[in-house]
Amino acid sequence: MSKPSIPKGTRDFLPQVMVKRNYIFDTIKAVFQTYGYLPIETPTMEKTETLMGKYGEEGDRLIFKVLNSGEFIKKSNKEAYESENSIRFANSIVEKALRYDLTVPFARFVVQNRNEIDLPFKRYQIQPVWRADRPQRGRYREFYQCDVDVVGSDSLLYEVELIQIFDKVLSSLKLEDFTIKINNRKILSGLVEVIGESDKLIPITVAIDKLDKIGEEGVVKQLREKEVSESAIEKLSPILSIKGSNEKLLEAVSSIVSSSEIGAKGIEELTEVLDMIQSLGLDKAKLEFDPSLARGLNYYTGAIFEVKANSVNMGSICGGGRYDDLTSIFGMKDLSGVGVSFGADRIYDVLEELDLFPKELLASTQIMFANFGSAEAKQSMKWLKELRENDIPAEIYPDTAKMKKQMTYANNKNIPFVALVGENELANDSITVKNMETGDQNNYTIKELVAFFNATRF
Amino acid sequence: MSKPSIPKGTRDFLPQVMVKRNYIFDTIKAVFQTYGYLPIETPTMEKTETLMGKYGEEGDRLIFKVLNSGEFIKKSNKEAYESENSIRFANSIVEKALRYDLTVPFARFVVQNRNEIDLPFKRYQIQPVWRADRPQRGRYREFYQCDVDVVGSDSLLYEVELIQIFDKVLSSLKLEDFTIKINNRKILSGLVEVIGESDKLIPITVAIDKLDKIGEEGVVKQLREKEVSESAIEKLSPILSIKGSNEKLLEAVSSIVSSSEIGAKGIEELTEVLDMIQSLGLDKAKLEFDPSLARGLNYYTGAIFEVKANSVNMGSICGGGRYDDLTSIFGMKDLSGVGVSFGADRIYDVLEELDLFPKELLASTQIMFANFGSAEAKQSMKWLKELRENDIPAEIYPDTAKMKKQMTYANNKNIPFVALVGENELANDSITVKNMETGDQNNYTIKELVAFFNATRF
Repeated sequence: MSKPSIPKGTRDFLPQVMVKRNYIFDTIKAVFQTYGYLPIETPTMEKTETLMGKYGEEGDRLIFKVLNSGEFIKKSNKEAYESENSIRFANSIVEKALRYDLTVPFARFVVQNRNEIDLPFKRYQIQPVWRADRPQRGRYREFYQCDVDVVGSDSLLYEVELIQIFDKVLSSLKLEDFTIKINNRKILSGLVEVIGESDKLIPITVAIDKLDKIGEEGVVKQLREKEVSESAIEKLSPILSIKGSNEKLLEAVSSIVSSSEIGAKGIEELTEVLDMIQSLGLDKAKLEFDPSLARGLNYYTGAIFEVKANSVNMGSICGGGRYDDLTSIFGMKDLSGVGVSFGADRIYDVLEELDLFPKELLASTQIMFANFGSAEAKQSMKWLKELRENDIPAEIYPDTAKMKKQMTYANNKNIPFVALVGENELANDSITVKNMETGDQNNYTIKELVAFFNATRF
Repeated sequence: MSKPSIPKGTRDFLPQVMVKRNYIFDTIKAVFQTYGYLPIETPTMEKTETLMGKYGEEGDRLIFKVLNSGEFIKKSNKEAYESENSIRFANSIVEKALRYDLTVPFARFVVQNRNEIDLPFKRYQIQPVWRADRPQRGRYREFYQCDVDVVGSDSLLYEVELIQIFDKVLSSLKLEDFTIKINNRKILSGLVEVIGESDKLIPITVAIDKLDKIGEEGVVKQLREKEVSESAIEKLSPILSIKGSNEKLLEAVSSIVSSSEIGAKGIEELTEVLDMIQSLGLDKAKLEFDPSLARGLNYYTGAIFEVKANSVNMGSICGGGRYDDLTSIFGMKDLSGVGVSFGADRIYDVLEELDLFPKELLASTQIMFANFGSAEAKQSMKWLKELRENDIPAEIYPDTAKMKKQMTYANNKNIPFVALVGENELANDSITVKNMETGDQNNYTIKELVAFFNATRF
């Protein structure tokens, strides 16, 4: 049999990677919980009708579909099969599909469980999603999303607290230099209104969202392609070129959009959020008003967020915003929500590149008992029990193999201490412990050894 | 639009259920780690060739298959379609399937990553699996498995440590009365050899495995149906009827099987494991030799385990055993392993029925600040920041709604304390805190409040 393999775009996670991933997820979860967010999970498979049509035509194509069980041919669309219409034929042999993101399932969850949840509903959700994208460096067909949202309130206090959450999570992960960019969709709406191009909100926001990548000239070129008038482009130019403090930017943008009602509302919301954060302070994050930030997603209606790690050449590591009507696709109107998403894979790459993972993560087992024989192993098992009862991860080499083999096992597993228990130790009721880094050896009673680990515990 | 729903046999997990599930998983993980086991994850989708043929014909039928993307009709088997052969046709439009259990993916993982892992390899894995079974009470199409295994060693120390793990996990979950049943496949092999029915090992073990359910008479009836000779049935009867201590049972079974080489080996292994556990002691578990325990699975070659909660009418909550040849299906021979699985859904039901979930689980947020207006909210956000920095989960009601509405929110979310911050509190720089259970009110500075929570922290 040939060497087994896994589907392209998917991954096995080995222990040394898993402990780092769990470190990220555990840090995130702990912060979410201090802000009163609680976990939910939704099924891996949703009904196709729940997912299809929610992500555009391209999205529909990328959804993994699960074949009906049993004699599915009987109910299949023979005409579609014969005409080789794969999409229509698939509809006749498929009723379930794999979750494409966490947003649509969350909207479905809120509507379906409306009688069991209280509003405002604060939830987080960390689960994998699947996309039949062409796999490439950093893009997988299965990857985790990590979302935190609150629905059922339009209070700006939640915008403030999500900014605090970005700051707290990334600071806790020891990231030193990162920027939270903020904008407000209402400002963008005011802008297109003021420049007389309200019907071109989407192409205009798509174009100015690319400012970072293609520069002012590139944006102007794209606006012309979309037939935005020259006078409108001229009015837009301060948005594309002003640099400076949040206050200065706000003033400039305000002078342009505040003649629009919705634009003024956007400025008001943004000002309130910035003021509150100003008075609360942030740990490591810089908060930056970026009037060109749009994040493509049409469902945002208020604040828009994006986070970038500054010292690393990588796209945004987090993003999100306020939406006012996400649940209406499932028949529940006027439920405002705001939420953000942490890009776990990218955060992982950033921490790896900046060497920010704690070294202790790799050493889960603190001490390995070498195995010199049956009597020694039996006594070692008693000592192991005592260590484990004190929550000190410990193990024994299973056989009386050669010393070198046993030591190699401990080394490869990054175990910092090895206990050497031979005849002398059995006679003295004590344990000789070798520090694998320094080579030092010391002798301890089991009580002393427990105390030693309790004292040095990270 | 009709109310949205999820595929049958799948579940949404609401926060009140999630916190309990996480309590179980976190307890299990913590114990695994003190024994030196590390996490891995495998992809949700495996190649169909990895899964098909590994679970018998019935298993193959229950595997969820994922439709190929794109113009899949072009490569499909037209002849199979026209003859309505759904299985063969499916093979032509499907290359991936959803994980059916964690055992086969783990075997595939070990072989595929053989150069990156060290033996013995101690891993745990907690991930969902999918089966297209008919859903019924307690049986789902998506459910979590929670497996811990070590491969690459035949040392009995691992059998001992897995028994300790059963004991530690379930005792930590406050279960008082549970029994770990143990048997050894070699004893069963010796048994059929001694009674002259070696070719009927499977039907005989299947029959005696049902002793609990159908009684001695039922087993004898089934053995006759399988054409087991009357003299053989007579020789088996002690196995079916002896009651008593492990020692008494061992003696009785030993006297039957020890004339068989493999039977004697099984007795020797079992005796060594029982002796070691005897000398180490267990917390809450009873360890019971059960010569009728077989657990159907053909791949077990040594120890067989099963755990039952005694005060609850439910099947086994954990199980497992030693296997000597699991990776050979992927071309890697002679790799002995032993592992056990925790049935998270059943453990959940047991803890629920016995009311053993800690009450504090439900209260994740410790204090909610009521919202009396903009100035009060702003000051409250500062205090919230201080609480959260001390890892005390805290939140604020987002709007200045009616007091009753705010209190209802806190009540429904099981929040034990509500902070009342009005004009007086702003003036005094202090917080009035209401105990939601007793109705008592006390006044604290923020420092005192942090100290209060730190002192009462569970």
